[in-house]
Amino acid sequence: MKAIAPGATLGILGGGQLGRMIASAAARLGLKVHVFNDTPASPAFALADVTTCAPFTDEAALTAFAGSVDIATYEFENVPREAAALVAGLVPLRPGVGALATTQDRLAEKRFVADLGITTAPFRPVDDAAGLDAALAAIGMPAILKTRRFGYDGKGQAAIRSADDAPTALAAMKGAPAILEGFVDFACELSVVAARSADGSFAAYDICENTHEDHILALTRVPAAVSAETAQRAREIAHAIADALDYVGVFAVELFLTRDASGAEALVVNEIAPRVHNSGHWTDHGAQTSQFEQHVRAVCGWPLGPAGRHGVVEMRNLIGDAVRDWQAHLADPAAYLTLYGKDETRPGRKMGHVTFLRGKG
Amino acid sequence: MKAIAPGATLGILGGGQLGRMIASAAARLGLKVHVFNDTPASPAFALADVTTCAPFTDEAALTAFAGSVDIATYEFENVPREAAALVAGLVPLRPGVGALATTQDRLAEKRFVADLGITTAPFRPVDDAAGLDAALAAIGMPAILKTRRFGYDGKGQAAIRSADDAPTALAAMKGAPAILEGFVDFACELSVVAARSADGSFAAYDICENTHEDHILALTRVPAAVSAETAQRAREIAHAIADALDYVGVFAVELFLTRDASGAEALVVNEIAPRVHNSGHWTDHGAQTSQFEQHVRAVCGWPLGPAGRHGVVEMRNLIGDAVRDWQAHLADPAAYLTLYGKDETRPGRKMGHVTFLRGKG
Repeated sequence: MKAIAPGATLGILGGGQLGRMIASAAARLGLKVHVFNDTPASPAFALADVTTCAPFTDEAALTAFAGSVDIATYEFENVPREAAALVAGLVPLRPGVGALATTQDRLAEKRFVADLGITTAPFRPVDDAAGLDAALAAIGMPAILKTRRFGYDGKGQAAIRSADDAPTALAAMKGAPAILEGFVDFACELSVVAARSADGSFAAYDICENTHEDHILALTRVPAAVSAETAQRAREIAHAIADALDYVGVFAVELFLTRDASGAEALVVNEIAPRVHNSGHWTDHGAQTSQFEQHVRAVCGWPLGPAGRHGVVEMRNLIGDAVRDWQAHLADPAAYLTLYGKDETRPGRKMGHVTFLRGKG
Repeated sequence: MKAIAPGATLGILGGGQLGRMIASAAARLGLKVHVFNDTPASPAFALADVTTCAPFTDEAALTAFAGSVDIATYEFENVPREAAALVAGLVPLRPGVGALATTQDRLAEKRFVADLGITTAPFRPVDDAAGLDAALAAIGMPAILKTRRFGYDGKGQAAIRSADDAPTALAAMKGAPAILEGFVDFACELSVVAARSADGSFAAYDICENTHEDHILALTRVPAAVSAETAQRAREIAHAIADALDYVGVFAVELFLTRDASGAEALVVNEIAPRVHNSGHWTDHGAQTSQFEQHVRAVCGWPLGPAGRHGVVEMRNLIGDAVRDWQAHLADPAAYLTLYGKDETRPGRKMGHVTFLRGKG
């Protein structure tokens, strides 16, 4: 791959708020940005030098996009693998198609993690009613049936608490290949946001403690209230996953923390996100290098920045009407407000976030 | 003026790196941005939602620009006053035309400052050879002859060390109205970067100590090595100037610090910049609120953010070929790199800056 220098063009597949914040960081480092997305109202378009609005199945548009950029990345894991592969055949794509292939399919992802000797929830593939019966017999209840692909923020999921729930849950999959996952009785949800370079260097931010509401991330606190050993183990898990994927860029590993009767902590990997991550938004004001700049550095083959934290952090998503509180946040000297420029406020829609930074910790 | 909320469009007259960084801050707060500038290769265009490339004398283009924005500002003080006045007649322009009128003319600016009882260098208007002789007789030598308008980074200036220099200096003014300023034997150059809201609230950053090379800012250190009394006096000067201008937005006051034989410090106002300022670039990573966000907050009628400083700051401009050191800066964990996306590197051209943030102080 040729060396990337300021003035080069970074291509971004996907145009949501993650792409918007990557574009902003890229511009700060003197890069030009070309955003490819399939909807006109894409938050990232406003910060791009060049935009392409076309379906991810439009091979001519993807080819032209790849021809116009020096390096490419993606900002969401549901970029169709065929689109990513087409681009990767024409220009370096970081992270690569392999990371997408592994993380787009919950079954492949779970198998990949389990093969590394890292704990996941118990899981079984489910393709039909017979398969679901067998999976329920093996895993027990409660359990969660999920589509293998295209799920996010709780979409494509159905809980099975008793045998009566099974047919409805299976119907909710709409015939898509599914996976049954055992229910994890967790004490809290954590994430590790980290970056890996092509040369194998690795930098993790401090562990995040996450609270979800209606399956959507509501709140991230850093540092997480876990033991130093657990924090270290979480970083090691992220490092092992990144190395095994030969990953380049920023990614997140979502984890469950469990505590047994004696209070001993254990970690269970829930998901890998091959991209900058909502639980890492606090790094924009709260860390020495934001996850967005870190991603750009890694993708361009530049040195990773330091991942130190400036203080005790609380990041709240502004979901739906919560964005109406923007003025109160602007008036709060501890608050750093970021809005995504979305014209339409809808329930459940991420409109922005606010990071509260207090003291040192 | 109607209340401005996220989703509104901020218009920026001027499209250089200052406009680029204002646009970036505005986008983060959910604003749309329309940049008006007269050259296609404008760094701010890349971060704007809408761009207009037209001369500042194009009344139709200015009228269309004003009609498309909810609030307007400018990013350089040499926006033609007629263009600013046209826009201000159609949409709120902050800061206003008055601040431009005062600061575009060195003579008007000096008189304005002197009328506030604030010390400036001695000055006299110079329109011709006879006027220059009279001014030199009054002020003495060395002195500096400057065009009253359109000077920046040392352009339009000529030093007069002996009577022999006078004709050459006058010729360098090319017939433009000029001002003779007495030479100030300064110990160091300082600046105050501050913001004032429409409601009169005021927030100043810590005093900056500036080093120029070839008349261009090379280095800013914060805090400046001055007494607490001098720092307080500098803030008071900036506050008095802002109040007298009924100023809205971020501005800078450039000052000379003099020390007499006993070491007593005094301040002499050199210039007022009615815009975000190069010596305030460190606030982007080194202060609680960047000067760019602060300017947007003030212009939109939103509360000012806190102006606290994160550590001991050194900001270096990357001028001309110095931008080639970008990789070394990326590898320095104390360095925050910002590049302006300019395609062509030229001697004396500001290509970016790097802020070094160390410890606390």
